Amino acid sequence: MHGMTVFETYAVFGVLAVAIAGLIYAFVLRRQVLKADTGTERMREVWGFIKAGANAYLGRQFRTLFVLIIGLTFVLAASVLIIPPSREATVMFGDQALIWVAVGRAVAFLMGSMFSYSVGFVGMNAAVEGNVRVAAAARQGYNPALQIAYRSGTITGMLTVGFGLLGGTLIFLVFGIAAPDALLGFGFGGSLIALFMRVGGGIYTKAADVGADLVGKIETGIPEDDPRNAAVIADLVGDNVGDCAGMAADVFESFEVTLVSALILGLVLGDVARGTLGDGQYDLRFVIFPLILRAIGVIASMIGNTVVRTDEQRRDAMGAMNRGFYLAAGISVIGFAATTVFYMTDPSTGRPDWRPFLATLTGIILAIVLDKTTEYFTSTHYHPVQETSRASQTGSATNILSGLALGMESSVWAIIVIALAVLSSIFIYASEAPAIQLTAILYGVSLTGIGMLSLTGNTISMDSFGPISDNANGIGEMSGLSREARAVMDDLDAVGNTTKAVTKGIAIGSAVIAAVALFGSYLTDVGKVQVQTGQPVLTGINVSAPTVFVGLLIGGAVPFLFSALTIRAVQRAASQIVDEVRRQFKIPGLMEGKVLPDYARAVTISTTAAQKELISLGLIPVMIPILVGFILGVEALGGFLAGIILSGQLLAVFQANAGGAWDNAKKFIEEGNYGGKHSDPHKAAVVGDTVGDPLKDTAGPALNPMIKVINLVALIIAPIIVTVRVPGHPLAMSLVAAMLACLAVLIWAIWQSKRDVAATGALAQ
Amino acid sequence: MHGMTVFETYAVFGVLAVAIAGLIYAFVLRRQVLKADTGTERMREVWGFIKAGANAYLGRQFRTLFVLIIGLTFVLAASVLIIPPSREATVMFGDQALIWVAVGRAVAFLMGSMFSYSVGFVGMNAAVEGNVRVAAAARQGYNPALQIAYRSGTITGMLTVGFGLLGGTLIFLVFGIAAPDALLGFGFGGSLIALFMRVGGGIYTKAADVGADLVGKIETGIPEDDPRNAAVIADLVGDNVGDCAGMAADVFESFEVTLVSALILGLVLGDVARGTLGDGQYDLRFVIFPLILRAIGVIASMIGNTVVRTDEQRRDAMGAMNRGFYLAAGISVIGFAATTVFYMTDPSTGRPDWRPFLATLTGIILAIVLDKTTEYFTSTHYHPVQETSRASQTGSATNILSGLALGMESSVWAIIVIALAVLSSIFIYASEAPAIQLTAILYGVSLTGIGMLSLTGNTISMDSFGPISDNANGIGEMSGLSREARAVMDDLDAVGNTTKAVTKGIAIGSAVIAAVALFGSYLTDVGKVQVQTGQPVLTGINVSAPTVFVGLLIGGAVPFLFSALTIRAVQRAASQIVDEVRRQFKIPGLMEGKVLPDYARAVTISTTAAQKELISLGLIPVMIPILVGFILGVEALGGFLAGIILSGQLLAVFQANAGGAWDNAKKFIEEGNYGGKHSDPHKAAVVGDTVGDPLKDTAGPALNPMIKVINLVALIIAPIIVTVRVPGHPLAMSLVAAMLACLAVLIWAIWQSKRDVAATGALAQ
Repeated sequence: MHGMTVFETYAVFGVLAVAIAGLIYAFVLRRQVLKADTGTERMREVWGFIKAGANAYLGRQFRTLFVLIIGLTFVLAASVLIIPPSREATVMFGDQALIWVAVGRAVAFLMGSMFSYSVGFVGMNAAVEGNVRVAAAARQGYNPALQIAYRSGTITGMLTVGFGLLGGTLIFLVFGIAAPDALLGFGFGGSLIALFMRVGGGIYTKAADVGADLVGKIETGIPEDDPRNAAVIADLVGDNVGDCAGMAADVFESFEVTLVSALILGLVLGDVARGTLGDGQYDLRFVIFPLILRAIGVIASMIGNTVVRTDEQRRDAMGAMNRGFYLAAGISVIGFAATTVFYMTDPSTGRPDWRPFLATLTGIILAIVLDKTTEYFTSTHYHPVQETSRASQTGSATNILSGLALGMESSVWAIIVIALAVLSSIFIYASEAPAIQLTAILYGVSLTGIGMLSLTGNTISMDSFGPISDNANGIGEMSGLSREARAVMDDLDAVGNTTKAVTKGIAIGSAVIAAVALFGSYLTDVGKVQVQTGQPVLTGINVSAPTVFVGLLIGGAVPFLFSALTIRAVQRAASQIVDEVRRQFKIPGLMEGKVLPDYARAVTISTTAAQKELISLGLIPVMIPILVGFILGVEALGGFLAGIILSGQLLAVFQANAGGAWDNAKKFIEEGNYGGKHSDPHKAAVVGDTVGDPLKDTAGPALNPMIKVINLVALIIAPIIVTVRVPGHPLAMSLVAAMLACLAVLIWAIWQSKRDVAATGALAQ
Repeated sequence: MHGMTVFETYAVFGVLAVAIAGLIYAFVLRRQVLKADTGTERMREVWGFIKAGANAYLGRQFRTLFVLIIGLTFVLAASVLIIPPSREATVMFGDQALIWVAVGRAVAFLMGSMFSYSVGFVGMNAAVEGNVRVAAAARQGYNPALQIAYRSGTITGMLTVGFGLLGGTLIFLVFGIAAPDALLGFGFGGSLIALFMRVGGGIYTKAADVGADLVGKIETGIPEDDPRNAAVIADLVGDNVGDCAGMAADVFESFEVTLVSALILGLVLGDVARGTLGDGQYDLRFVIFPLILRAIGVIASMIGNTVVRTDEQRRDAMGAMNRGFYLAAGISVIGFAATTVFYMTDPSTGRPDWRPFLATLTGIILAIVLDKTTEYFTSTHYHPVQETSRASQTGSATNILSGLALGMESSVWAIIVIALAVLSSIFIYASEAPAIQLTAILYGVSLTGIGMLSLTGNTISMDSFGPISDNANGIGEMSGLSREARAVMDDLDAVGNTTKAVTKGIAIGSAVIAAVALFGSYLTDVGKVQVQTGQPVLTGINVSAPTVFVGLLIGGAVPFLFSALTIRAVQRAASQIVDEVRRQFKIPGLMEGKVLPDYARAVTISTTAAQKELISLGLIPVMIPILVGFILGVEALGGFLAGIILSGQLLAVFQANAGGAWDNAKKFIEEGNYGGKHSDPHKAAVVGDTVGDPLKDTAGPALNPMIKVINLVALIIAPIIVTVRVPGHPLAMSLVAAMLACLAVLIWAIWQSKRDVAATGALAQ
């Protein structure tokens, strides 16, 4: 690309090669996993149900989303008719800028959404292929089972980082300094699909889980994963579509959006840093640096993953995974430092500029601190969860109250940690020249996001490990494996629960960091278009202005609305599952184990229920920012974004940690405290666990992609608003009319979802 | 005062006369109530316990707060040494400005806190005097009981409006255009005491309530208010100190702060509206208008209250109170319109300016809409609560989830309604000249607050009616009154529950409106000092600046921290009550009713527990804004305020409505739905009710004064921060050191409260 040095050209192609290497590594691992033994006939039978259910779900989801994606692709392409190509695009493509930008926006969006979907789909597929083989390997010993579980997880991990890096690098190679437009489309595609996967998967998994537990464990008193429970397969499928596909798409999207924000801000910084804004000359160091960081992270993860093994004496899965993680972290930091010394030299002094490195390091530290915070609030080893267990002695009410207080408090600490990370960036760039200081600080924040997610390869491997060993354990239970094999899987399952919780903390934290960086670039974005159209330039999002404050209020309300709707969706779907399981329990011979339940029906109910809610929930984050922007203007839309980020972060952590704590408070009692299993405190704790399920696995995690979808939609539409929202503009009136129509649709959708509750309610009585 | 017309002088003295008339009216009502019969010996005995407990609590609270109040009075007086008197004060008082401002700040603070305390104390006293007399009157019939209950409530109502109006008017009379300084002190005193009353009373009442229920109703299965339960008197005392004293102080503070914000903004508007900022000439219409509005509201409430009666056939307490309310509302609107026509004429055209009237009317409409919203989400007559009841069929977990979703959704609608109210103000002043538009809009918002609370006299009467009839019912139960008398009181009690819920919605809504208006004046306030000290003037709170965004994040976290700490405080205190009641149940002869339990011990435990938590919880809202302001600066402090208002409002409504819905979902089942009392769904719903108790009566309502205390502290310290926080200033370093010491104290206090939980926990095992 024009303006790159020879070294930079090599570096970018090297990054591309690393991305492809990651994908190849995933492919090799997949072949290795597929070679492993799939166990007994009965195991394959159970597995067949899970596989069919999981594939059916994602297939159906794809058909639901297909039309939407194609439609949005055309909308993005058509958007060039309203927003003319940027100055940079004209520099890059001259007369053909219009067509390049149109195709760029559309193809990048399509690529983002397809990559996100593929990561979810192929990753889930790998998990499903892996789980039966883990169960089979558990009959041989601990290490073989661990190896297969971890490798299956690593397939997803490598897909995530491979696709994420591939997309960003390709766009940069093709579009160069005109990349921001396409990058936004790429980010939007990835986030939107992640949102759908999170919401759909979350509703599916918790409807099946809560439904299965309410009738099976609580009403009938049969154990978890009992084959007589009609919802048991749906529950296992749910782990794959929710915890595996949903989480993978979500983290892919975080990985991608942090890169997108670093590239966009890096380009701005590369322009203004030269002090010659608009001369068409760029300092590309700030763009290429994050690409190299990402590539180093991918290589480090690959190396780190090779050391994950244990032996039959120690059986230390957690230790093995941590070893891999710390090795990768060490390699990364050394690599980042080396890049700084050899590449990030200040052109005027010739000495390395350590500030980007420090911002990235802040991200790694932030990831570790958030980890520890999450662990402190949700692990059975610390005071908070033990306190919630203790509160179960006086019944479910005190257990719930204790968890609510814990969740609220944990969100306070999480936000303070994030605030400190932003402050470090301010501190790191404190001596920067005033003209570029703000951009430099925001660039630092985006590098902090890059740092946080630099070990995504390991994180996802560890996270996917959770549902894989959970499913393996379920298959083991249902096909009556030996006690030794079950013990292996029980242990892996427990380790998986811990790794899953840790990933959630990082996912939410990185979402907010990425959102802050995106929010920061909002002003630059708006300002550019205002300069082009000759309007006065917005210099800040002034929340003491009444309309902006109104925007802030509405923004803050959105996460509450979204959480309320998702919790209700889970309840609605779960009540359908409850009815179905109850109905099947009455089938003669079923309770005696002579007749198999109709697993497929429960799977179909979960699938249909999740799909039904999907579109209306997915529309909210796309429509509301458009409405707010057109009705209240771009500055109020900025206030709206600030409100979303603030209350989204608070609510996401509150829900995730309260849910995690209730889950583990129950486990702490099951370990023999306060009367152990089947005691009254245990029953009280089960109530807390059930309340926490949709909070921690549906409503909370869905806020994560939601925050980013809204930020990206705002960034994409801001130029349109600036261009069109001028009194007397021919499009203005028709667009306002269109907006009001959208509002009507939205209100109708929410109203409809309420009527459905009422209808389901009436049905249940 | 200098600059007032003859009419204006008469008007202001007229307002003063109305304020005093309100207080005299309260005194007359008190004499009437005291003349009524106090019933049987046994009734007086029970009542004696309640009276002693309630007075002991408030007395103890006063001693706890006394030192703090005196200390703060001196700090406020001393603050003139750092912030010199304003330009206006110099105009008013010349050479003596320093001493006038010092005394003004201190005396106004003292007056605000004493008025707030008196409203709580005398109001609660009236309620306690009333309740036994209501029980006695219930033996005669429905109307006599209603009359006494309502009149006792009206004493509090009239004290609230009388003191609120008296304080504001006096300060304006003495300080004239230099009033803002003293007004802030007045508002701060009132809010701070209200916060203490809310938090202390809230912890007391819910500790006793939850504790009494957990052992009495749930463990032992004896009815509510059973005389064998040692915590029953503490529970009845709690209704008085929490629902009565706490609520009265809280609404007094809202009433006062809306007036304070209208006066401050009215002065600014009166200065800039003349287009001659700084010439010492003021257009005082904007200041005198809200004072007249308030006076009209007080008169309307007095007239409205006279028609509250019913007859023995209809027995329609709710209808009677609504009649009074609508009569008062009608009189107010006519009075407001008349004032507009005769007084609010535009000097240039001579025609009435209807815009302030419209803004006030918006407030009345807002109050009614918030009422209806609260009612929709928390009344048994509508779908949401019925849905929560229905969810109890599948156990407590689904009941809880349903309530959580409902609470979240209700907070969305409440914030949208408030956003619309702010938007109306923007719309009303859309054609105002750009130079004064922002101030005019904010003034409109503050008038909306005035409008919302114009019928405070009626609202408080209706609200106090709740705990009075609740207590009367308790006295009836404990002294074995006849079935007829009990039926009367049961009905009044049920009506009281509805009126209480409605008041809560208005209290929270008005808190946010007042906070928005205060927040709006923050910028003006800071700007003035910056001009005086020759610094660049802040033109907006730009949340896209990283430090301001950090302020926003921290601000948003504070309500979560505060709620977590209050919920935990209730739990801790309740567990002590549980232990005590359990211990007393084991006393031989107690369960057979031969031995009376030791009520005083439970009362003492509640009192001590509530006092212990008070100071650390009260320090948070005072210290955190000081810390944020000094460390991050005034603009970040503005972001912090925006964060507090946003998340405070969301969390307050969420907690209040979720709690209210759980309470009524239980009642809906008790009415015979889904199996009625003692069924499994009822048990599930009792869990929800218990979870909701501290949310709706402690944590949620405490956010209300908390939001305003923080806003007022910020307004008071902003000038100090601007003056002192300059590098190299002699005070800067020592203040930073002091701040860090404060931070250490704060962390220690929070840590300590955790250790206490652990200790209490260990004790309970």
